[in-house]
Amino acid sequence: MRFRSVFRASQLRGGAPFVSCEPAASSSRLHSRPKRSSFGIAFDVDGVVLRGRAPVGGSSRALRRLYGDYGGGIPESARALELSQHLGVNILPAQVLQGHSPFRNLLNRYENELIVATGKGNPALVMSEYGFKKVLSMDEYASCFDNIDPVSQYKAWTSDDVLGPNGCLKDLGPECDVFSERVQAAFVVSDPVDWGRDIQVLCDILRSGGLPGQSGGHQPPLYFAADDLEYQAAFPLERLGMGAFRIALESVFNRIHHHPLEYVSFGKPNPFVFDNAEMTLRQLSLSHCDVCGTDDGHPPSHSFSTLYMVGDNPSVDIKGARQAGHPWFSILTRTGLFKGEDNDTSFPADLVVDTVEEAVDYILSSECS
Amino acid sequence: MRFRSVFRASQLRGGAPFVSCEPAASSSRLHSRPKRSSFGIAFDVDGVVLRGRAPVGGSSRALRRLYGDYGGGIPESARALELSQHLGVNILPAQVLQGHSPFRNLLNRYENELIVATGKGNPALVMSEYGFKKVLSMDEYASCFDNIDPVSQYKAWTSDDVLGPNGCLKDLGPECDVFSERVQAAFVVSDPVDWGRDIQVLCDILRSGGLPGQSGGHQPPLYFAADDLEYQAAFPLERLGMGAFRIALESVFNRIHHHPLEYVSFGKPNPFVFDNAEMTLRQLSLSHCDVCGTDDGHPPSHSFSTLYMVGDNPSVDIKGARQAGHPWFSILTRTGLFKGEDNDTSFPADLVVDTVEEAVDYILSSECS
Repeated sequence: MRFRSVFRASQLRGGAPFVSCEPAASSSRLHSRPKRSSFGIAFDVDGVVLRGRAPVGGSSRALRRLYGDYGGGIPESARALELSQHLGVNILPAQVLQGHSPFRNLLNRYENELIVATGKGNPALVMSEYGFKKVLSMDEYASCFDNIDPVSQYKAWTSDDVLGPNGCLKDLGPECDVFSERVQAAFVVSDPVDWGRDIQVLCDILRSGGLPGQSGGHQPPLYFAADDLEYQAAFPLERLGMGAFRIALESVFNRIHHHPLEYVSFGKPNPFVFDNAEMTLRQLSLSHCDVCGTDDGHPPSHSFSTLYMVGDNPSVDIKGARQAGHPWFSILTRTGLFKGEDNDTSFPADLVVDTVEEAVDYILSSECS
Repeated sequence: MRFRSVFRASQLRGGAPFVSCEPAASSSRLHSRPKRSSFGIAFDVDGVVLRGRAPVGGSSRALRRLYGDYGGGIPESARALELSQHLGVNILPAQVLQGHSPFRNLLNRYENELIVATGKGNPALVMSEYGFKKVLSMDEYASCFDNIDPVSQYKAWTSDDVLGPNGCLKDLGPECDVFSERVQAAFVVSDPVDWGRDIQVLCDILRSGGLPGQSGGHQPPLYFAADDLEYQAAFPLERLGMGAFRIALESVFNRIHHHPLEYVSFGKPNPFVFDNAEMTLRQLSLSHCDVCGTDDGHPPSHSFSTLYMVGDNPSVDIKGARQAGHPWFSILTRTGLFKGEDNDTSFPADLVVDTVEEAVDYILSSECS
């Protein structure tokens, strides 16, 4: 018996991962099943597996049922470690697809260009680790311009002072001068923390062709890691997501600039996300087979009969899976954004369950019966 | 010779005042003029008199020309004191009309009701001083609800802990329970500092009928002290104002709620602002006459032949003065938002000058020739 799962943290939550695991072949529980099938599972995290930092919907039990007592690898990313700790299941960094992972595909275009990254956490570090050489966080960039944020004196942000006396990043050397060099692209890596400052400075950058105060020049490209309007976090009510920030930015920008905002969002329900998930599952399947081989001596299958998307947000998780089509099968839980009794009317899922544990029960019984 | 002036801090800048002064009757310079006229002047502050905290466009000289060496009263409000210090001219609190001054007219309706106030500075104190008994700042209100702001851990706000252990304001006593009492109205008193948090919590309040998580109930009224899209502050480029925040809030709210956002803005170009300015000038004229009488023994005139609006923003200052009609006369300066060589095309002013000093020159020569 073989199965693969993608453990998917919401693409819509900045910094939240998209994780795939390949542990079940070593699970005695699953080894006892007679049927061999080829399927994968993609889990949305916020509202399905976690609410805030707490497991929800029996997710720890459900994942242990999938992974058994498998314990391979050493976590390499903070998110993989965090998930492992919260859920009591080992999640490998290679099993995590970040919402901003697609940004690395833009490396050829911006590797040595000045770019700005915003969002909670350390967005510049994320981009640096993808290989971008001249990335400034919005905190860093904005701090170069006196008075760019007219209410900054009312804030007490904790941001590191990484700027030299000439307003240049120490690490970047003198070749980076934010007062003469145009920003070539802006990236919203995770949920923005300071909406007002970010909307203001993004407008400054984007409407000036990359250099606040300059005229002319086309709007630099703007990339979002996600586009969720709302999501389920620790608070009982859904919280505004990166898509809400995008709407706020867009509505303001379009009032002060003569060209509408142009942007690219890599979040669900973008089909790219689902293609990427399938590709990741396939790669994990291959790498697992390299290590352990198959237990029947046959070469592993790299196409899936079914890929399950387990999510809580009809308009992104379910809509995306429906758009992606075969082999995706959508399962909607009630532990997060969706709270309806019946199916969602706009984007009905193939199956509606209360919890992720019920979803796993269904998948195991369907695939292993 | 008699003249009256309204020294007007932008209605569009939260916390910025609307000041009227009645000093000139004692100015020997003006006493020497032969013609007696009845006029008033309303100055927008940001971009006309100040940029950031610095005088601009010869405003100190211009105002000294108007006020001569008059030095009456002791400043009672922080803003009057601040303006006096910046400009070297005594500005009395009674000469200041705050952008949020109209809120005091709502006292009968909300005096003992739970209301929430947001904006830079101390919006709850502003409302308390108007007489509202149960006002919470957004900082205070939001801090009652754990996790209401999902990115709060990335912020380090400097706000006092004024909440008791039961989540109630100590000052308000146990009768104020934010978990059971509906917010009856929300006030944007000045420029919001934390757009993301404010948009989130305002959405929570407004779409729930005043109590986050509850359903039903009509949207509580929402009041803005101003509606300027952009304004000129210390930064060379115009900055986003309260109107931009309103657009961001409205665009997000209208995406997550089935009824469009309802709100009232008291900012320019609302005709109310100009009526209020005229009324304030008239009251100051009367109070001045009570003290000093008229120097020809005749009762003072309480209608103005001309009211000058000196502003930098065509779409609020000039548009508003044009809409208000007689006796308003609009003068557009180039020290702030407007930077055109000719007149504004959408909202042309009656006169365009470079600086406020030129505007005062024009007014004095017109009225005193």
